Amino acid sequence: MLLIKTIPELRAALAGKNVAFVPTMGALHDGHIALMSAARTYADTVVASIFVNRLQFGPNEDFDRYPRSLDADCARLDAAGVSVVFAPDEAELYPEPQVYQVDPPVIANEIEGAFRPGHFRGVATVVLKLFNIVQPRVALFGKKDYQQLTILRGLAGQLALPLDIVGVDTLRADDGLALSSRNQYLSAAERAEAPQLYQALCSVRDAVFAGERDFARLEQQTAAALDARGWQTDYIALRRRADLALPQPGDEALVVLAASRLGSTRLIDNLEIRATATGADA
Amino acid sequence: MLLIKTIPELRAALAGKNVAFVPTMGALHDGHIALMSAARTYADTVVASIFVNRLQFGPNEDFDRYPRSLDADCARLDAAGVSVVFAPDEAELYPEPQVYQVDPPVIANEIEGAFRPGHFRGVATVVLKLFNIVQPRVALFGKKDYQQLTILRGLAGQLALPLDIVGVDTLRADDGLALSSRNQYLSAAERAEAPQLYQALCSVRDAVFAGERDFARLEQQTAAALDARGWQTDYIALRRRADLALPQPGDEALVVLAASRLGSTRLIDNLEIRATATGADA
Repeated sequence: MLLIKTIPELRAALAGKNVAFVPTMGALHDGHIALMSAARTYADTVVASIFVNRLQFGPNEDFDRYPRSLDADCARLDAAGVSVVFAPDEAELYPEPQVYQVDPPVIANEIEGAFRPGHFRGVATVVLKLFNIVQPRVALFGKKDYQQLTILRGLAGQLALPLDIVGVDTLRADDGLALSSRNQYLSAAERAEAPQLYQALCSVRDAVFAGERDFARLEQQTAAALDARGWQTDYIALRRRADLALPQPGDEALVVLAASRLGSTRLIDNLEIRATATGADA
Repeated sequence: MLLIKTIPELRAALAGKNVAFVPTMGALHDGHIALMSAARTYADTVVASIFVNRLQFGPNEDFDRYPRSLDADCARLDAAGVSVVFAPDEAELYPEPQVYQVDPPVIANEIEGAFRPGHFRGVATVVLKLFNIVQPRVALFGKKDYQQLTILRGLAGQLALPLDIVGVDTLRADDGLALSSRNQYLSAAERAEAPQLYQALCSVRDAVFAGERDFARLEQQTAAALDARGWQTDYIALRRRADLALPQPGDEALVVLAASRLGSTRLIDNLEIRATATGADA
């Protein structure tokens, strides 16, 4: 496995290669490794990037304390069959202020974007730049960041990027907690409580299966139930999968998205559901 | 020469090819043909696109009456050694509203951008999309649209596009008028007057050579002289070439940009100059 830190070296190493690409911010867990395994089914050369992208963090977010563990990450990526790790420093990727950015559509300001202004603009910009550097044929993203995946699919389609975007199912602990680099912020007591976020999503799924169609009430009740346990919920949002718009009558393929804080740690999760129980995927 | 109208056909035709690309809006003149000739020195396969891009026209601009002459354009491109013409219709390039756009830096709202709000956002967005479709190794643009060239260079650099941007000198009629598709809007009397725009730029160059350093006064006097001849001048702007910022003491490589209307036709032009006469390039 090659560890490469500059754009020219990366381009030289990848020239002519058929690449599957997994962008990450490091602090890798089994969910990332599942992405690498999936990537190997798409191309001989798997490239992972590790870059904590300042553009996608708000001024009061956790950019500075975001966990960094390059050596351990590389060991895991090597074991996962990754060919090349691209780990540029900030001066390589942003040698000057990034004044050309991607302006995403209004959905980027809703749901997660309503609580993290500019987040998806920063994500879309760095991912587009990484795509231009790596030039992959396929890029893989976890469904854990569902809105990110949706926005990057839109970006790739609307800008006619010469690659496919693949979403990979969220990996969960045995108790249901979605794997996340931010889980390591949790105290033992918080870790024990944390699976309740996934349980809340499951309760929404069950209520929709049972016929609940007042989605606003369902969202509100679910958030209130979490908050009664000590969470501070930013949103529980039932949307249709394709574009994360509000569901219209007849929409079957839905997703419920959630963000909530336990102490100082903000967790997000989501669950794809169907408006009527077909047993297909939830 | 192939005339191709869809993205999949274009990608199939260009797979594995080393491409020099010249995006145009059609209505081709000798200036465009000079771009094609320059392109042939960079790659075996020259691709020209013809697409009148609605995104870069303001609501009161000339999108609907912009000249369209596909058959004549193709004949000229064929004779110029172009391999492939990509002429998508709007439904191919914008099958739905283009909600992912490039957000360019503040310079895009100055000079020409101050008079055409959103113009460079539209240009940057369509050019980025065309780059993703054509995947050229080099793309060529005329210096006639100097601010466009500067912004596209910035775009390519900041988004790490895997291509080089080449600027090609403006082609002029014998009387100095810069060739432009919009020249065909001019009446005979306007056509006779039109070279005065270039003369105005030359007078700015001569004044700077002669030691004039009050650039604001020089800009204003030059505009007033044109307007006294019946022009309506939007701007005469002395900037430094690299980033089109206001010149600072010591800046040598400058450019003077102009936009002015003759009747209902708006003409733009520019001239690269040096702050001190070295004879190098002006």
